[in-house]
Amino acid sequence: MKIALAQQNYIVGNFEHNTSLIRDGIARARKSGADLVVFSELSVCGYPPRDFLEFTDFYESCAEAVRKIATDCKGIAAIVGAPSKNPGEKGKPLYNTAFFLADGQLFGMAHKTLLPTYDVFDEYRYFEPNRMPYQVIDYLGKRFAMTICEDLWNIDNYPLYVRNPMEELSRLQPDVIINIAASPFHYNQPETRLDILSRNARHYNLPLFYVNQVGGQTELLFDGGSMVLTPDGILKDELQRFDEDLRTYELEEIQMPDTGCQHLASDIQTIHSALVMGIRDYFSKMGFSKAILGLSGGIDSAVTLVLAAEALGSEQVKALLLPSRFSSEHSITDARTLAENLQCSYDIIPIDGSFTAIENAMAPHFGQLSFNVTEENIQARLRAVILMAMANKFGYILLNTSNKSEAAVGYGTLYGDMCGGISVLGDLYKTQVYELARYINRSGEMIPINTLDKPPSAELRPDQKDADSLPDYALLDQILFHYIEERKGPNEITAMGFDPAVVKRVLGMVNENEWKRHQTPPILRVSPKAFGVGRRMPIVGKYL
Amino acid sequence: MKIALAQQNYIVGNFEHNTSLIRDGIARARKSGADLVVFSELSVCGYPPRDFLEFTDFYESCAEAVRKIATDCKGIAAIVGAPSKNPGEKGKPLYNTAFFLADGQLFGMAHKTLLPTYDVFDEYRYFEPNRMPYQVIDYLGKRFAMTICEDLWNIDNYPLYVRNPMEELSRLQPDVIINIAASPFHYNQPETRLDILSRNARHYNLPLFYVNQVGGQTELLFDGGSMVLTPDGILKDELQRFDEDLRTYELEEIQMPDTGCQHLASDIQTIHSALVMGIRDYFSKMGFSKAILGLSGGIDSAVTLVLAAEALGSEQVKALLLPSRFSSEHSITDARTLAENLQCSYDIIPIDGSFTAIENAMAPHFGQLSFNVTEENIQARLRAVILMAMANKFGYILLNTSNKSEAAVGYGTLYGDMCGGISVLGDLYKTQVYELARYINRSGEMIPINTLDKPPSAELRPDQKDADSLPDYALLDQILFHYIEERKGPNEITAMGFDPAVVKRVLGMVNENEWKRHQTPPILRVSPKAFGVGRRMPIVGKYL
Repeated sequence: MKIALAQQNYIVGNFEHNTSLIRDGIARARKSGADLVVFSELSVCGYPPRDFLEFTDFYESCAEAVRKIATDCKGIAAIVGAPSKNPGEKGKPLYNTAFFLADGQLFGMAHKTLLPTYDVFDEYRYFEPNRMPYQVIDYLGKRFAMTICEDLWNIDNYPLYVRNPMEELSRLQPDVIINIAASPFHYNQPETRLDILSRNARHYNLPLFYVNQVGGQTELLFDGGSMVLTPDGILKDELQRFDEDLRTYELEEIQMPDTGCQHLASDIQTIHSALVMGIRDYFSKMGFSKAILGLSGGIDSAVTLVLAAEALGSEQVKALLLPSRFSSEHSITDARTLAENLQCSYDIIPIDGSFTAIENAMAPHFGQLSFNVTEENIQARLRAVILMAMANKFGYILLNTSNKSEAAVGYGTLYGDMCGGISVLGDLYKTQVYELARYINRSGEMIPINTLDKPPSAELRPDQKDADSLPDYALLDQILFHYIEERKGPNEITAMGFDPAVVKRVLGMVNENEWKRHQTPPILRVSPKAFGVGRRMPIVGKYL
Repeated sequence: MKIALAQQNYIVGNFEHNTSLIRDGIARARKSGADLVVFSELSVCGYPPRDFLEFTDFYESCAEAVRKIATDCKGIAAIVGAPSKNPGEKGKPLYNTAFFLADGQLFGMAHKTLLPTYDVFDEYRYFEPNRMPYQVIDYLGKRFAMTICEDLWNIDNYPLYVRNPMEELSRLQPDVIINIAASPFHYNQPETRLDILSRNARHYNLPLFYVNQVGGQTELLFDGGSMVLTPDGILKDELQRFDEDLRTYELEEIQMPDTGCQHLASDIQTIHSALVMGIRDYFSKMGFSKAILGLSGGIDSAVTLVLAAEALGSEQVKALLLPSRFSSEHSITDARTLAENLQCSYDIIPIDGSFTAIENAMAPHFGQLSFNVTEENIQARLRAVILMAMANKFGYILLNTSNKSEAAVGYGTLYGDMCGGISVLGDLYKTQVYELARYINRSGEMIPINTLDKPPSAELRPDQKDADSLPDYALLDQILFHYIEERKGPNEITAMGFDPAVVKRVLGMVNENEWKRHQTPPILRVSPKAFGVGRRMPIVGKYL
């Protein structure tokens, strides 16, 4: 028996697009001689559909699409994912379902039991967990344990769930484990995922076929990396990362012991690929092609520009240099050098005339009050006015260039440098942005070395340095990591040896700036805990 | 036996504040002769604690506070709500628990079974549902069925849950139902809540004591309205709405048949009270006292100003009139008249100088391109720059004045009139804003009648009217209501008799503007489906 894995990039809610992709996958799998082709979780509607699921019309469209796809399943079977109606009188109205389609019709189905409802996941918001006894799908003499993503995660010490679907399925003597998934990337996820799948294959002594969604869905970046594992838990093959792929396997070969293939580890190169895909898919799925950003001569806008040029093409990216009376000479030259290195077009629009006009308008009200953060914010906001004016006039989308360290402590101007359609670096701490810049420069000086070497500065007042207002980034980023990614409290962080006063100050800044982060653009997610939908904090709450 | 209900306004995560409120409630209840005093759901930490619950330190602080409160429970028992640790190896790490404290210690407890995970609720994100058999609390010869909010909602045709805690508890022959809740307001909620509670009392033929949280928690407005019902399901008494309250009842009297008291119905007056409380609590809990807003002469900013003046005091609210070359004469006079009626201070800061400066800066790039939405947005954004400059310099918080109709169809400028710390009217359709304005003017012309009578206009180009770009608000608001509040799809709405082309256009506008709404401030919630945390839509998704 031959099994194909189809790793595809869906558009949430675009049934025409998704159905056509899936039909194309079936045709290609058939051509490769496959008896069964497997698509990812909720492939028919794309993942995550979120509150679209509350519309009757939406899940009826899913059912209609499944029926259409079934008619293609002649001489080949397919597993697709879609929501299905809970026929019971009680419980949530839908299931998250895997449909096994064969002979032109529905052959079997399985509902998801373990519904991730944490971090970026909200599945119990929509779906009733399966409460029925499990069944294997008996097809062409093979018994398939058909599972959906999280259903395999209750293994060993993973604590979140009481029920264990695969344990129950294993009593029915399956020959193969199938897992259809929509598992978004973060830099630890590929390792964790392989570990979980490998434990399952080994524990149940079965070959395992795993299909993941690929592509960016606003902030969520699905990395693909679908896998085939032997009953020893050895990785036999891994599909492409960050791109569509379709491969066909002889089941008998997967059942053999094997030395396995190389698993692509997570490092700065993976994060780089994830961000490039995230930009590309945000633009293509929104129907945009051109990006604009403010290029300051600093590290964040430099890295953002490079990533955008890679994702969209240099000719689709415009840089604006927006100097003020406080901008240093090297800011302009560093920014200009980078734009020229990348062959991006750029314009220089000084903001001093506009700044003076606002100063004049405010003069009767500000009187003799001295220059302070107000005037710093005015400059940042006038830059946003100019960037958005260019964007509106010529159809660019503004890219946000904030990093995670800034976003965490509120070191940025709301409606100023915090603007943009999508935040590219908002899930990378400042120290990680430097690491990414060095990776970009791995085979030559794309980003001017001066941009990497000079001390970070917002240049909103004379001789300003980030270090005037913030702890050194090397220290700051460590404390932030323990607080945000690891959810350690002040006592725990202090116990690690950090200065209690600094810890208190940093954690206080993070909490006080929830209101600011509430208004920021979606942030491409590459860490296990990004600001945005996966981190839900009270705004008026007063903890710490 | 005497039972007291303590309806209080907690600050999420402020254990010192909340513990002191609760201890004060115990002391007052004891003074009134109560044998038992009941506080609301998660009273110890405040509701909703959101991801604070992921910090060990946070729920340990809850446990510590419960221990402290227990020591006060001498000669009186108390029921308080707090998270508690799930001692099991599997499942979510916490329960949402009601603690029965008596004789200075823990006397009994109950975990919540039905965990609302829809709209603004995320309880299964944090809590394991109770899976244990239920127990009644036997205290001073009475048997208490202690339930938590949603636990009473699986009655009659309410579909969401399979298990029914009260049905199981009823087999243990309780004498009284206690329900501790954190049930946020929307304009249908008081009716629904009374209906559900009344059905429970009647169905189980038991007196029911219901305590709700009161106060604003950013966007969520808890209206209080705690209740006592007879075994016939008759409302015996209702505590204050939108304010703290504590009342004590003789249980024997509640067990008697009664003709009941008046239930405060939901209407524009209730919405008005909710918004005033929402502004007041947002400011007080954030530690702010002064508000600023742009007063355009239109209806939205007029109503916002009146509500802010009522919430914070006229002397704490500053209006800015920000005329441009397109502002009509009546805009200035209407705005000025209102500020004078309210005795709010106001300043006039024309934006033309700044607008010209930006036009000059853009001229080399815009060339001969004609005036369009770009220039309209520049004006709106310069107003935001000026408002934020005043806010930053003098410590005001900017109030957002957008309404729900505008937010829905994207008729507003991001980083312009969509700015603000909190959105006051963002959950009221334009037609509801007019209704609220008429309510405000019920005993005299506070808002100039011309503001109510003139056709709505953004005044960003000559002779602009909202009706040039949008369907009439009376029609638009109906279509939006069916789509947003009722989650009807295009076919269903068209079937009601609306023009299919208009329906398609309006629904398309709503979907295309998800990216804009993602960056708006929290919106005070008064409807069953507000933009914000309770409505989670894909941004790059393409449905409709």
